[in-house]
Amino acid sequence: MSRSKDAPPQAPRILDLPVGLAQTGTRRETDSMGAIDVPADRYWGAQTQRSLIHFSIGDDRMPTAVYHAYGYVKKAAAIVNGRAGRLPAWQAALIERVSEEVISGKLDEHFPLYVWQTGSGTQSNMNTNEVISNRAIQLVGGRLGSKTPIHPNDHVNMGQSSNDTFPTAMHIAAVQAVHRHLLPTVRALSQAIEAKAQQWRDVVKIGRTHLEDAVPLTVGQEWSGYATQLAQATDQVITSSERLYELAVGGTAVGTGLNTPPGFGEEVAAEIAKATGFPFRAAANKFAAQGGLNAMVGASAGLRALAVPLMKIANDIRWLASGPRCGLGELVLPANEPGSSIMPGKVNPTQCEAMVMVCIQVLAEDGAIAFAGSQGNFELNAMRPVIISNFLHSATILADACEKLREYCVEGIELNREQIDGYVNRSLMLVTALSPVIGYDKASAIAHKAHDEGRTLREAALATGYVTAADFDRIVDPTAMVGRSPVATTYR
Amino acid sequence: MSRSKDAPPQAPRILDLPVGLAQTGTRRETDSMGAIDVPADRYWGAQTQRSLIHFSIGDDRMPTAVYHAYGYVKKAAAIVNGRAGRLPAWQAALIERVSEEVISGKLDEHFPLYVWQTGSGTQSNMNTNEVISNRAIQLVGGRLGSKTPIHPNDHVNMGQSSNDTFPTAMHIAAVQAVHRHLLPTVRALSQAIEAKAQQWRDVVKIGRTHLEDAVPLTVGQEWSGYATQLAQATDQVITSSERLYELAVGGTAVGTGLNTPPGFGEEVAAEIAKATGFPFRAAANKFAAQGGLNAMVGASAGLRALAVPLMKIANDIRWLASGPRCGLGELVLPANEPGSSIMPGKVNPTQCEAMVMVCIQVLAEDGAIAFAGSQGNFELNAMRPVIISNFLHSATILADACEKLREYCVEGIELNREQIDGYVNRSLMLVTALSPVIGYDKASAIAHKAHDEGRTLREAALATGYVTAADFDRIVDPTAMVGRSPVATTYR
Amino acid sequence: MSRSKDAPPQAPRILDLPVGLAQTGTRRETDSMGAIDVPADRYWGAQTQRSLIHFSIGDDRMPTAVYHAYGYVKKAAAIVNGRAGRLPAWQAALIERVSEEVISGKLDEHFPLYVWQTGSGTQSNMNTNEVISNRAIQLVGGRLGSKTPIHPNDHVNMGQSSNDTFPTAMHIAAVQAVHRHLLPTVRALSQAIEAKAQQWRDVVKIGRTHLEDAVPLTVGQEWSGYATQLAQATDQVITSSERLYELAVGGTAVGTGLNTPPGFGEEVAAEIAKATGFPFRAAANKFAAQGGLNAMVGASAGLRALAVPLMKIANDIRWLASGPRCGLGELVLPANEPGSSIMPGKVNPTQCEAMVMVCIQVLAEDGAIAFAGSQGNFELNAMRPVIISNFLHSATILADACEKLREYCVEGIELNREQIDGYVNRSLMLVTALSPVIGYDKASAIAHKAHDEGRTLREAALATGYVTAADFDRIVDPTAMVGRSPVATTYR
Amino acid sequence: MSRSKDAPPQAPRILDLPVGLAQTGTRRETDSMGAIDVPADRYWGAQTQRSLIHFSIGDDRMPTAVYHAYGYVKKAAAIVNGRAGRLPAWQAALIERVSEEVISGKLDEHFPLYVWQTGSGTQSNMNTNEVISNRAIQLVGGRLGSKTPIHPNDHVNMGQSSNDTFPTAMHIAAVQAVHRHLLPTVRALSQAIEAKAQQWRDVVKIGRTHLEDAVPLTVGQEWSGYATQLAQATDQVITSSERLYELAVGGTAVGTGLNTPPGFGEEVAAEIAKATGFPFRAAANKFAAQGGLNAMVGASAGLRALAVPLMKIANDIRWLASGPRCGLGELVLPANEPGSSIMPGKVNPTQCEAMVMVCIQVLAEDGAIAFAGSQGNFELNAMRPVIISNFLHSATILADACEKLREYCVEGIELNREQIDGYVNRSLMLVTALSPVIGYDKASAIAHKAHDEGRTLREAALATGYVTAADFDRIVDPTAMVGRSPVATTYR
Repeated sequence: MSRSKDAPPQAPRILDLPVGLAQTGTRRETDSMGAIDVPADRYWGAQTQRSLIHFSIGDDRMPTAVYHAYGYVKKAAAIVNGRAGRLPAWQAALIERVSEEVISGKLDEHFPLYVWQTGSGTQSNMNTNEVISNRAIQLVGGRLGSKTPIHPNDHVNMGQSSNDTFPTAMHIAAVQAVHRHLLPTVRALSQAIEAKAQQWRDVVKIGRTHLEDAVPLTVGQEWSGYATQLAQATDQVITSSERLYELAVGGTAVGTGLNTPPGFGEEVAAEIAKATGFPFRAAANKFAAQGGLNAMVGASAGLRALAVPLMKIANDIRWLASGPRCGLGELVLPANEPGSSIMPGKVNPTQCEAMVMVCIQVLAEDGAIAFAGSQGNFELNAMRPVIISNFLHSATILADACEKLREYCVEGIELNREQIDGYVNRSLMLVTALSPVIGYDKASAIAHKAHDEGRTLREAALATGYVTAADFDRIVDPTAMVGRSPVATTYR
Repeated sequence: MSRSKDAPPQAPRILDLPVGLAQTGTRRETDSMGAIDVPADRYWGAQTQRSLIHFSIGDDRMPTAVYHAYGYVKKAAAIVNGRAGRLPAWQAALIERVSEEVISGKLDEHFPLYVWQTGSGTQSNMNTNEVISNRAIQLVGGRLGSKTPIHPNDHVNMGQSSNDTFPTAMHIAAVQAVHRHLLPTVRALSQAIEAKAQQWRDVVKIGRTHLEDAVPLTVGQEWSGYATQLAQATDQVITSSERLYELAVGGTAVGTGLNTPPGFGEEVAAEIAKATGFPFRAAANKFAAQGGLNAMVGASAGLRALAVPLMKIANDIRWLASGPRCGLGELVLPANEPGSSIMPGKVNPTQCEAMVMVCIQVLAEDGAIAFAGSQGNFELNAMRPVIISNFLHSATILADACEKLREYCVEGIELNREQIDGYVNRSLMLVTALSPVIGYDKASAIAHKAHDEGRTLREAALATGYVTAADFDRIVDPTAMVGRSPVATTYR
Repeated sequence: MSRSKDAPPQAPRILDLPVGLAQTGTRRETDSMGAIDVPADRYWGAQTQRSLIHFSIGDDRMPTAVYHAYGYVKKAAAIVNGRAGRLPAWQAALIERVSEEVISGKLDEHFPLYVWQTGSGTQSNMNTNEVISNRAIQLVGGRLGSKTPIHPNDHVNMGQSSNDTFPTAMHIAAVQAVHRHLLPTVRALSQAIEAKAQQWRDVVKIGRTHLEDAVPLTVGQEWSGYATQLAQATDQVITSSERLYELAVGGTAVGTGLNTPPGFGEEVAAEIAKATGFPFRAAANKFAAQGGLNAMVGASAGLRALAVPLMKIANDIRWLASGPRCGLGELVLPANEPGSSIMPGKVNPTQCEAMVMVCIQVLAEDGAIAFAGSQGNFELNAMRPVIISNFLHSATILADACEKLREYCVEGIELNREQIDGYVNRSLMLVTALSPVIGYDKASAIAHKAHDEGRTLREAALATGYVTAADFDRIVDPTAMVGRSPVATTYR
Repeated sequence: MSRSKDAPPQAPRILDLPVGLAQTGTRRETDSMGAIDVPADRYWGAQTQRSLIHFSIGDDRMPTAVYHAYGYVKKAAAIVNGRAGRLPAWQAALIERVSEEVISGKLDEHFPLYVWQTGSGTQSNMNTNEVISNRAIQLVGGRLGSKTPIHPNDHVNMGQSSNDTFPTAMHIAAVQAVHRHLLPTVRALSQAIEAKAQQWRDVVKIGRTHLEDAVPLTVGQEWSGYATQLAQATDQVITSSERLYELAVGGTAVGTGLNTPPGFGEEVAAEIAKATGFPFRAAANKFAAQGGLNAMVGASAGLRALAVPLMKIANDIRWLASGPRCGLGELVLPANEPGSSIMPGKVNPTQCEAMVMVCIQVLAEDGAIAFAGSQGNFELNAMRPVIISNFLHSATILADACEKLREYCVEGIELNREQIDGYVNRSLMLVTALSPVIGYDKASAIAHKAHDEGRTLREAALATGYVTAADFDRIVDPTAMVGRSPVATTYR
């Protein structure tokens, strides 16, 4: 049978037209449901328009990062299809060219769809197909909506299904969000914290456990703990997102790869890897890759791994900075803005509060992702939009909050040395150093005595006779008590 | 001491100027931190500008509904302050007038702040104060940024703190979202479902428990269950949001009402009630109202109460419509758009999928709200922005998803009678009707026999001799088995 | 057709045998799957035994409260069936008698099943039916396992299905847990807090917002906020559990009430109400009551409503008690136990920590309940065991934690007046009282000046010349600043 | 100063006494709070007894696995302390011996404490110290409660704090639960699934996306997807738990290692590694290891990674087995037990339901762990008991549910070939194979025509004239459509 529909038009001349449509009013577009009017200044077609009407739910739009990622998919598929002769070279080149415009963001305003749409992301795939088709048609001087010479399904979507390409685009977008935006800002924050740890490495402060006075450590040690927690979380982000490199592309509708030639998925993945610089590859088992979205759920656990220590760190900072006169008052935060509409001169730990709220949001969105990940059926998990939108949102607000916390809080923090020193001197828990020498029970008696009588530890210790003044002064030395432990941050 | 700053300027003439600033470039504004440039075509002042810089985290903006609600607060406070002579009448009237512009949405573009800001919402309160101040100054021909004759703190914020007014605005915004947007769309969906229940009241279908064939009921009965679940959830939404009528206003900074006269909160609440039409009143204990955000957490449980049955209903519909030839196939959904980029002619239950995803999102956001609600300290729960933004978002997407599900799915659903009838005739569980007559054990034996031998229930029953043909035909009558139960929906 | 199986044996004599089976080894029991051995000293039958084998997952057992509740259901059904003559009077009386043994807890060891079983709870219903059957058989001197003269399905389960009776038992158990255990302990805690609020009503302390020094309030006011939050949460618990009074009983398998006479559900519910003292009634729409478990999800929101403020209160207490010398140190907690295995003399806020952990657990279990509530299909939500087990667990640990917190923490808390007074005198935020007099901007300048120069507020104020010494002393009076607000707790 | 308390008693003779105390009544024990009576037949001391009284909250006990793990810690510390001469050899050997009894479980009944206790786990540490002390005292014929010659703090706890040892024990217990219980059962399930994939590799079935008919695949391919999802999740469990090998031991009270010699933590970790066979090592930064519990949160994400695909698989199985006559009916599940108390002969997918509920529980408990992980302050995250109890519970029920699902469901599943074949023949989506030949639009028209007219795909295709009968039969061949894709499971 001749593939008459493909009787290739001669390669048309590509016009040098900038992105954009000057028309006003509407244009008639069609799909298998029939005809529908679309705005004449937009490239999208009938299926996009139907989705816009049927799914105007809230104001959550599919993130543009998904379309940029889809640009890589369409470009790679065109290259592979062209190379194998399934597409004439000029068609492949044209699709590739327009896909690059998609990647660049120049066509962003032509991707208007809502998050809350079909669970497969088909409508966003078709939006991409339609925009590339019409922009290509424009570039060869054709009639928009004619699907000729570049058909959204037969050419742009050749060898593809939403079922395999949408999760492919999700993975690309997620990897880029993590590596290009999130990790750099987290590392910068971590380094800022580590710089503080170095700066304050010799400042002895009181430790606190259960919020209660404990034995001393240095401020540098405390902050090395923060830096290490972030470094470890960074590791977890990286590890947790490695499964994202496996792409569903090539599985088409249900994972069997129907309507694709052997090796198609592998070749497309290789092109995506080349274009993005990340080691993407085709998933070995497409039934797993399309039937579940487990790699996304796993990657989200990486975001959560950041949120958990960030919340702790932000809370520690705001508590240590509480005051200025009726709180712990060990840290002095930068005063970025007036803190109260009624209390003049008030300064609040606002960056920490923003970070805490961001972390709560990220934890909740991670929960949504896991929930949605559990709700797949048969050959498709139809919860893709809710997963990718939450993931990209979480990654973005985490990244930005790290940047702000670093710039407007951490880097400007100073110590209140007077307060810090005073606490060390007052704490009863320095008695712990006596414990290996006089035993826990006697040491305990000293601490209770000091507390009950409102005396210093030294006074109480000497009063008991359990220790001599000389021994006390030698043993109960806060500086010696923080001794051995390294300030170093553990990076992987 | 003379209150020289208050030596009232004579009431100035109010100019009839439309909203908007024609200037370009920047304008110098000041606050207690010093001076800062703001865009000349915006009304906001120094504190808003600082927040914009320090908190550009993601693209989540404080919902405009919060500012509209704040408009009611500022208007009410101005009325009460004016009535008591604490503000000259012309100042009160001017603030009232501009507050109405805020309420109307005309000033929306002057409220640019991010969700992730100070946890008290102070920056959004000051944004409101600054915009009202400058717009008022414009209206009397003054110099923007001069804070004269309307000062953002001393006049617009008179008798107020962010600590009491921000939760007040949260409650107003939440109540309006629930009553003006959410409840109408839920009720419309519920009524559409009830109409279907009436339409299909006599269609006998097979029931399913554990996904397995069970005894019959009517389609009308099944849908009456849906309608009742929504009606009950509607009740829960209403009940759960009743505590929102209690407003923190009047508590100022820590709940004591410092810097407000007796009765101020009560009077302001009464004005808000009058202006909005909802029965707002001042909370009796401001320490509870400001130290916690429990009323918001409770109201969010109302949203969740909707999401839970909506998810069940959306799932039931898509399962019952599964097919068309290899699924349950009892329902036929409207074909709104092509379902696949690769499988021609495919139609999917996309509205149901969108609803399921919305419900997952709402459940997650409800979790964020509860988490944030637990994180308050002392006289302030500083997690307000994350709570109100999630609440309003959830209410909005739930409402819109209900509207779309009704319009583009429920109202167009039709029954596949052939399929429905066939199932009823095939089901072995009709044997249940025999149980009271011949006992559970014999009835069970009949069902197992029919199943094992691939025979009809009647054949198996007669083969056992436990029942006569006449008795079987009389007792095992699906129409009789659905008998007594009412189709009525329980509305409150 | 003669109902030969029902040819009533003459009423047998009821033996006066205590609960218990003296046999050892095993006994042969049967069901529709065949025969199986059960422990001879247990009353349960074949279905219970199968479930024990197939579902030994973890060590989570269906709570005995569910069986006690089921006892009410079986008793009520027997009464109603007996009254209508569907059961001979002696059979009804016998089932009623044994049901009372179930209610009393005397048969608890005969209910061994795991939580993780069939989603309908059928196995626990059959466990109940089997135990009642065999205990009744014992009481008339019959042969255990013979199902004669009391058959587990035909007699004990007459007019019932697991589908309607298990959620009925869930509601009964939940209502009792809430009203008999949870609410009394919460009220006792709330009253202990309110007593403290009264005791400390005149102690002026510094307020804190954003963890930062704010204007003063009294300790009594602060604690009145706690008491009010708990009182309001108590209201929410009550309101949220009201829907539990609607029982599914009467719906049988799919909500149609097949195999029950008219009015059966209503009559059974009335008997349950009479026996329990709670206003139970039959649900008007059984399709909703069995297809969803929304009332349980709603009731769980009530538990969450308690956990949220309890977490805040527990956190406030442990922060305010932090120290003793390097923390806020306003409160002194009872020293119940040594706090550290290494730091002698350490005392920790352990009751608060336990409460915080309990609240986290309750919030998580509430999430499980909502998730499970969303996962129903068609005529049954088959997630019942996970819902009731989490609900009862949450209610129990909340109740017990409230009791312990009250007894071992709240009632013994004392104030550190020296610390509290010192904070009030040091705080810069007292400047707020000057704001209405000299304006926000000048007041702010005074606070900043005092902070920057490390001076007292009074010194800074006088140095600016904005206020006279006399005015300062008159206006900046902490005692006056806390003035008007009531200490009263709002109870419903 | 002489360390008189250490003047070593001569090595006493070790009596050969079995575990157990024959005394009745109570025994007086003491700690720094004073004296208290404990049950005479229990080894525990004063601090355990205080905790039992103060924290009887619910019936959740600290899992015995935690104490077994603590046994390894105490043993390792004794070895290291003995080796260095800090403990006399006989003391070290005695502690080591009793620690082995703890590890073996022989002392389980002496660890009665509740989960809801101090957030550091100090009370469980002291429970261990006290039991080892008293059991050691018994073995040398000493007086219980005398703390001589083995003192709970000075000897058993030497060089340790709860702050470093409790998280150490958490990690040990968690690693063992994962590797000894969970992974084996998951692998067995995964292999059972893979065996089914092999068995059914050539059975062509209809695929379903969006629950709607899609193109075919083989049952083997579908199940290979399940096996792959589990294999990948298994990888995630392993990867996610690797950070657990880093132990806090050696950090003592606040991470500085006060009261321990250099290298102590490393040596203890090495002993633990030797005794358990797992590659435990000392954490490089103890401030991170004690200030957070991030490794546990990360490991919990591994459990979640299992729950997500397990829920999907369990749901797929129960949907595919739905029926028997009114559902999808492709699978036939083993009939393990009667399914209904009212519907005779009903069989339900109960194992799947149990698994779904377990997964919901695990997701919720993972949420609790993450929440708790975010709530640390300063040098201690005092949320340890809630984290370890949830983790061990989740791991246990997941493991057991996998075992039951495999044994009582998966291994016995059979195919209903008639049903499966019938669906393949009926599906309209086979038209997809025509799409590359005749184009998407014409293929779509054929599918719509067949649907609208109730005809077979072949009839509709030929009627349109778009394809010849020969071409249709050649191209629309389900067996060919599933062609290329491997059934292989991807194992790491």
